[in-house]
Amino acid sequence: MMKEKKGERFKILVGYDGTRTAKEALNVALFHARHFDAEVHVAWSLAGGQDTSMEEIDTAQDGLQHAESLFGEAQIPCQTHLLIRGLTPGEDLVRFAEEHQVREVIIGVRRRSQVGKLLFGSTARYVILNAPCPVVSVK
Amino acid sequence: MMKEKKGERFKILVGYDGTRTAKEALNVALFHARHFDAEVHVAWSLAGGQDTSMEEIDTAQDGLQHAESLFGEAQIPCQTHLLIRGLTPGEDLVRFAEEHQVREVIIGVRRRSQVGKLLFGSTARYVILNAPCPVVSVK
Repeated sequence: MMKEKKGERFKILVGYDGTRTAKEALNVALFHARHFDAEVHVAWSLAGGQDTSMEEIDTAQDGLQHAESLFGEAQIPCQTHLLIRGLTPGEDLVRFAEEHQVREVIIGVRRRSQVGKLLFGSTARYVILNAPCPVVSVK
Repeated sequence: MMKEKKGERFKILVGYDGTRTAKEALNVALFHARHFDAEVHVAWSLAGGQDTSMEEIDTAQDGLQHAESLFGEAQIPCQTHLLIRGLTPGEDLVRFAEEHQVREVIIGVRRRSQVGKLLFGSTARYVILNAPCPVVSVK
């Protein structure tokens, strides 16, 4: 149950990867943060090691800077996090939510058609099933 | 993008079926409605026809009455809806959201283990992929 705890700000975690749906997720986070008087954490997950190029890291840093400006302009407390810990994006988001007492996770979900069937991305499925709090899916 | 439209109250739709996770979804709706100054629509979907017994209809009506009291006590505008239109619960929720300009759908999701694998319920998957607005999944 979502109770308001005294002295502890409601924390929203947004998974961000620069895609259109992830930008939409930032907009929803903006709306929620304004109404919940929340602080927003924006996380970009990269695998790290040989799987990650310097270019990917640059793109992630630019994306996180964009997110930071967005919330800064709206005067909403925001922290950004580049997560490079050898985990999948889903694992990174769930782990972060657990470690930081996040009260809501917001993610972009893309519908993918395969043989005429709608499928979830594996990240969305993993986060929705495993996050320790409600998960908002944005398209 | 979630914009606040003048003169139109933010509408939250909760899919309710009396289960534990659906009750949790009501709690999240309560919290969101309070902060968004929203009205809440609680919908219970039944297939109808030969697939639906009078007992099921009674259970649904009792459940909806419980939900109505919950929001009434919190002084949050609430309407309940028993949907019997020959649709699946997922189709009922998406159709309702489309027809009533719902801005957020809240559903309970249950993790189901099958051969050691986590699976989504088909209702949750359908609603998340097809709803015209963000979907909040609650466990």
